[in-house]
Amino acid sequence: MEHLGRRTWGVPEGFIPASSTGPEVEMTSHETTCILSTSDAEAHVQIALSFPDREPAGHCAATVPARRTLHQRFNGLAEEGQVPIGADYASVLVSDVPVVVQHTRLDSRRPANALLSTISCFAG
Amino acid sequence: MEHLGRRTWGVPEGFIPASSTGPEVEMTSHETTCILSTSDAEAHVQIALSFPDREPAGHCAATVPARRTLHQRFNGLAEEGQVPIGADYASVLVSDVPVVVQHTRLDSRRPANALLSTISCFAG
Amino acid sequence: MEHLGRRTWGVPEGFIPASSTGPEVEMTSHETTCILSTSDAEAHVQIALSFPDREPAGHCAATVPARRTLHQRFNGLAEEGQVPIGADYASVLVSDVPVVVQHTRLDSRRPANALLSTISCFAG
Amino acid sequence: MEHLGRRTWGVPEGFIPASSTGPEVEMTSHETTCILSTSDAEAHVQIALSFPDREPAGHCAATVPARRTLHQRFNGLAEEGQVPIGADYASVLVSDVPVVVQHTRLDSRRPANALLSTISCFAG
Repeated sequence: MEHLGRRTWGVPEGFIPASSTGPEVEMTSHETTCILSTSDAEAHVQIALSFPDREPAGHCAATVPARRTLHQRFNGLAEEGQVPIGADYASVLVSDVPVVVQHTRLDSRRPANALLSTISCFAG
Repeated sequence: MEHLGRRTWGVPEGFIPASSTGPEVEMTSHETTCILSTSDAEAHVQIALSFPDREPAGHCAATVPARRTLHQRFNGLAEEGQVPIGADYASVLVSDVPVVVQHTRLDSRRPANALLSTISCFAG
Repeated sequence: MEHLGRRTWGVPEGFIPASSTGPEVEMTSHETTCILSTSDAEAHVQIALSFPDREPAGHCAATVPARRTLHQRFNGLAEEGQVPIGADYASVLVSDVPVVVQHTRLDSRRPANALLSTISCFAG
Repeated sequence: MEHLGRRTWGVPEGFIPASSTGPEVEMTSHETTCILSTSDAEAHVQIALSFPDREPAGHCAATVPARRTLHQRFNGLAEEGQVPIGADYASVLVSDVPVVVQHTRLDSRRPANALLSTISCFAG
């Protein structure tokens, strides 16, 4: 398998709805960054968050083992106070080896859940 | 953090549904352009709108402070009469520093809202 | 405004749901190709359709005037028998001047409509 | 028609919801990889699956005849035990001729179905 992807990814859209309906955890409104590594080395990914009104915060980190995928909910980071709930944010991921990044949201504010997803913007 | 993105972005899809259900503002049908700037300089973004049947209008502008994200609803521009409601349009964003752009729609014409999002097409 | 985009675009996903709910035309299940031209010349776009089980058909054409956007429903082409309803297809757009292409689906088979959209794959 | 696309594609997002509502098959929760080949040669596509916690499995293969599109549900592979249901995965597609790949999910866990789709990340 080829070593696929880039080391820097930007995701302008970020918004975790403040409310949810349906069974908890599975149907809780959330955003997830999906990281795919085809590298034979462990990927160390720094996640910096951008905001409308203050300096970026860059204390989040994720590790993807060699030849693995990691689907990391931002909600976990929200519980630590790093990602705001019900407010705009954006994210930049910088990895030490090439990875592929896709960003997904489940919005269950209403009984009919809605999904969005997009491949992220890459550079580097 | 690297200075990420491009200076020119095109979004062919543009359509703000004319009706909504649910709590106003939060669940009002809308389209939003999400701009992420990792630059150390303020980004000045010109938003030109294209239409099926008349010349582009380019009087909208947005400013993104250094290292910030701006999620700008097009509905605000609609109230000023620049973006049509319930009619097709498209947009081109030109920034003086590199930015990343993502376009999102919330369609709440029915009680079950629907979302779409896509990374935009870049050039320049 | 810069002349933005490419001349060749591919859209693997194509499927117009065979049923709909809600007010006709506006909420009819459909797929739309959104074309944005920033060129000063008229864009002549050939739309070739691919299928799982037969040769491509390439008799569809669209014209986008200079500096305009065209949101063309594939359903119109379906009525002429070129696009199947409730069956898989794909599309390739070739333009004589650079354009940007985005593909969108509204699925209203159920009272809760669903949307998908993605920027297309470009070449040339 | 030009021979469009790339030979390697990565899709970080992969998750087939474990439950569904509505008429079977058509409305069953599923993920589909849409492959478009504009080549004059048959495309032989190897699909390798990545997981959070074990080595990739690469025993899936798909053949796309010349100038055809193939919309392959991952659910079929799930029945053979290769794709997990209700669990995270990712996919990498490697073709011997250029193709275009788009990944789509229908989530019908609730009566209101939700769709997501994105063009995949390409390389090679």
